[in-house]
Amino acid sequence: MYQIDEKRLEEKINTFSKFGGLEKGGITRFALSKEDIQAREEVIHRCKKLGMMIEVDDMGNIYGTLPGKEGELAGGILTGSHIDSVKEGGNYDGVLGVLTALETIETIVVEKIPHRHPVTVVIWTNEEGADYEPALMSSGVLAGKFEKETMLAVKNQDGKTFGEALKESGFEGQTKYRANAQKYAAFLELHIEQGPILEKEEKEIGIVKGVCGMVNYEFLVKGQADHAGTTPMKYRKDALYATAQLLVELHEKLDVLDEKLVYTTGKILAHPNIHTIIPDEVRLTLDARHWDEKVLAQVVEIIESVPKTIAGCTVEPREAWSRNPVPFRGELIEKVKKSVKQLGYSSIELYSGAGHDAQYIADMIPTTMIFVPSEGGRSHCQEEYTPLEQCVKGANVLLNTILEIDETM
Amino acid sequence: MYQIDEKRLEEKINTFSKFGGLEKGGITRFALSKEDIQAREEVIHRCKKLGMMIEVDDMGNIYGTLPGKEGELAGGILTGSHIDSVKEGGNYDGVLGVLTALETIETIVVEKIPHRHPVTVVIWTNEEGADYEPALMSSGVLAGKFEKETMLAVKNQDGKTFGEALKESGFEGQTKYRANAQKYAAFLELHIEQGPILEKEEKEIGIVKGVCGMVNYEFLVKGQADHAGTTPMKYRKDALYATAQLLVELHEKLDVLDEKLVYTTGKILAHPNIHTIIPDEVRLTLDARHWDEKVLAQVVEIIESVPKTIAGCTVEPREAWSRNPVPFRGELIEKVKKSVKQLGYSSIELYSGAGHDAQYIADMIPTTMIFVPSEGGRSHCQEEYTPLEQCVKGANVLLNTILEIDETM
Repeated sequence: MYQIDEKRLEEKINTFSKFGGLEKGGITRFALSKEDIQAREEVIHRCKKLGMMIEVDDMGNIYGTLPGKEGELAGGILTGSHIDSVKEGGNYDGVLGVLTALETIETIVVEKIPHRHPVTVVIWTNEEGADYEPALMSSGVLAGKFEKETMLAVKNQDGKTFGEALKESGFEGQTKYRANAQKYAAFLELHIEQGPILEKEEKEIGIVKGVCGMVNYEFLVKGQADHAGTTPMKYRKDALYATAQLLVELHEKLDVLDEKLVYTTGKILAHPNIHTIIPDEVRLTLDARHWDEKVLAQVVEIIESVPKTIAGCTVEPREAWSRNPVPFRGELIEKVKKSVKQLGYSSIELYSGAGHDAQYIADMIPTTMIFVPSEGGRSHCQEEYTPLEQCVKGANVLLNTILEIDETM
Repeated sequence: MYQIDEKRLEEKINTFSKFGGLEKGGITRFALSKEDIQAREEVIHRCKKLGMMIEVDDMGNIYGTLPGKEGELAGGILTGSHIDSVKEGGNYDGVLGVLTALETIETIVVEKIPHRHPVTVVIWTNEEGADYEPALMSSGVLAGKFEKETMLAVKNQDGKTFGEALKESGFEGQTKYRANAQKYAAFLELHIEQGPILEKEEKEIGIVKGVCGMVNYEFLVKGQADHAGTTPMKYRKDALYATAQLLVELHEKLDVLDEKLVYTTGKILAHPNIHTIIPDEVRLTLDARHWDEKVLAQVVEIIESVPKTIAGCTVEPREAWSRNPVPFRGELIEKVKKSVKQLGYSSIELYSGAGHDAQYIADMIPTTMIFVPSEGGRSHCQEEYTPLEQCVKGANVLLNTILEIDETM
């Protein structure tokens, strides 16, 4: 089995943590910001040094390609992720997928590993949607999820449009360079787990079988505002008490549905939210995720069948939005498994609860992902951390899976 | 039985609804505002026309006294309320107690009703605490609940102190005019119920036995913030779910304690309150009221004995503040009852859940209150309404109770 170089990968992680680096060790690197442009230029610089060809598409996605023996006709192998971050994010979310891709190609070049297919490192523009919403913007445009014109018109808080920022950045390339199924036989994205499963289960590699589907609801609970001191309990219609009963009932029903189901009621707004007034209105969000559409359909059934009246208050569930589960390509998952096994790493199969560019690219190109552990399950914060040893193992899985694909597809 | 004059009372209510009157029919009349000063001057003007003597104390409380046959030595009968309002309040809260007091005295004057004691109408300054906190400010200073110097230094949102506003208003009188037990044998405050009991029970008069005591708590529930999509349910510490269970448990225990207990969880703040993040902290207020200290002690016991841990989260109840119940003077309550009976009105005995100046004055002078119904239980809003007929009945009870006190005390 080939191995990537630990020191080289460490240097890459350290160097890129400085583009937008913060005092506490994390980064703020919004898509198309000065810091993002510095990081993009550094990737391009390193690609060119390795003899790779650079192409940029009309959404600013960057492709650096190492030619293979059989040229482009064989269908290239695409790998990478994003290098933008949330506000005060960490040094691993996204960028580790680009740096392990770069290190993989550097290993192929330095070790002169024979390969038939071209291998391409990709940077997807604006995965986080932190400055310009939505998240997964550019992979979404390529996959036809978002209208390009709508995305170009999105404004950030300073009133600048994404289209203007793209033009100014110098990274507005050509539509003909967009990734598609003609050009690429496979897409592999290495990413940190952003959750606690690998760490808690003491596994080194997450074999990602797909991305969970989601249903998002808002419950509107309506009661009646009355004075805390003068209204007997029997006349009250307390929307917060009704919401508490609703939450307990939802847990009773959803907690027995499926062990792998996750759901979150993260946001609650009570009105008027004054300690001497009985709340007349409460809004509560619910976000449920699972890889199996049938389980999500059961969740919807439970949500839609909650009592219409609780404690004298009306309860109205409204669907906000949903997305279907995205299963990854079985053939590629098998190749990841084979590499993990040959490398002797421990692993677990799982589904991603978080969203990734891979879930959109999967609509066009056979795709899968590789997860490495997140310490304490933490992400989207400066404390986000994956030990170097785990990054190396992830990169080795990426390298050997690419070589396996190269050999067999 | 003597009767007040309906037309005269109606004219009073209509006239005073114009001082600070709003388009929707309510008023905004903050203490010591231009509108409040207009209303004060109108009360003084009317008192003088009735041959009453005006005194103003150092907190701006106004006393208008109709002499009795036996002069001041007999101990006067004090009656009144406040004329300030909350922002966008109604035409009855407070001011009805002053206008029915005025009408009572006008009736005594016009009908030449013989009486031994002086009868004094009082306006307590700044009951609402809407512009200058706290509520019950001036009755509180007289009763020694608040330090006068501290109150004079209280600033409103414009940065003006209450002391400055008092000086500018021209209503900064002398300490020697403060109400006390030497001067007054009894204090009667007529007020709207501000709750639904009289209306729901179809009673005309509320015989107020006292003001409820209160306990105020804040619960701090602490869990752990994690990603909605990547954190399995079994690893979660969801502070909002824990709070929902806490609320349901509190209701289970408090709802069986005592039928007359009221308690309200009006304010909830979840952190970070983002729909894709598990809440790590929730703050929930609890306000409980009852006239019996023993019941309130049981409430505290229940609050203090909630589980320290719910759903993996810590639960910490913190006492914010409390006040003891204030029982009114039995002798006066009996005189109110007698008048109600003689007038042939329906009535119910109750305790006030809301706070009133009477609860502080009761510490110095024998005190009780008379409630009239609030339509729909509504108060502190422009829709606040008590039909004229009910106001007249309340005023008749006030007049005849005063005459009863005059005769027997």
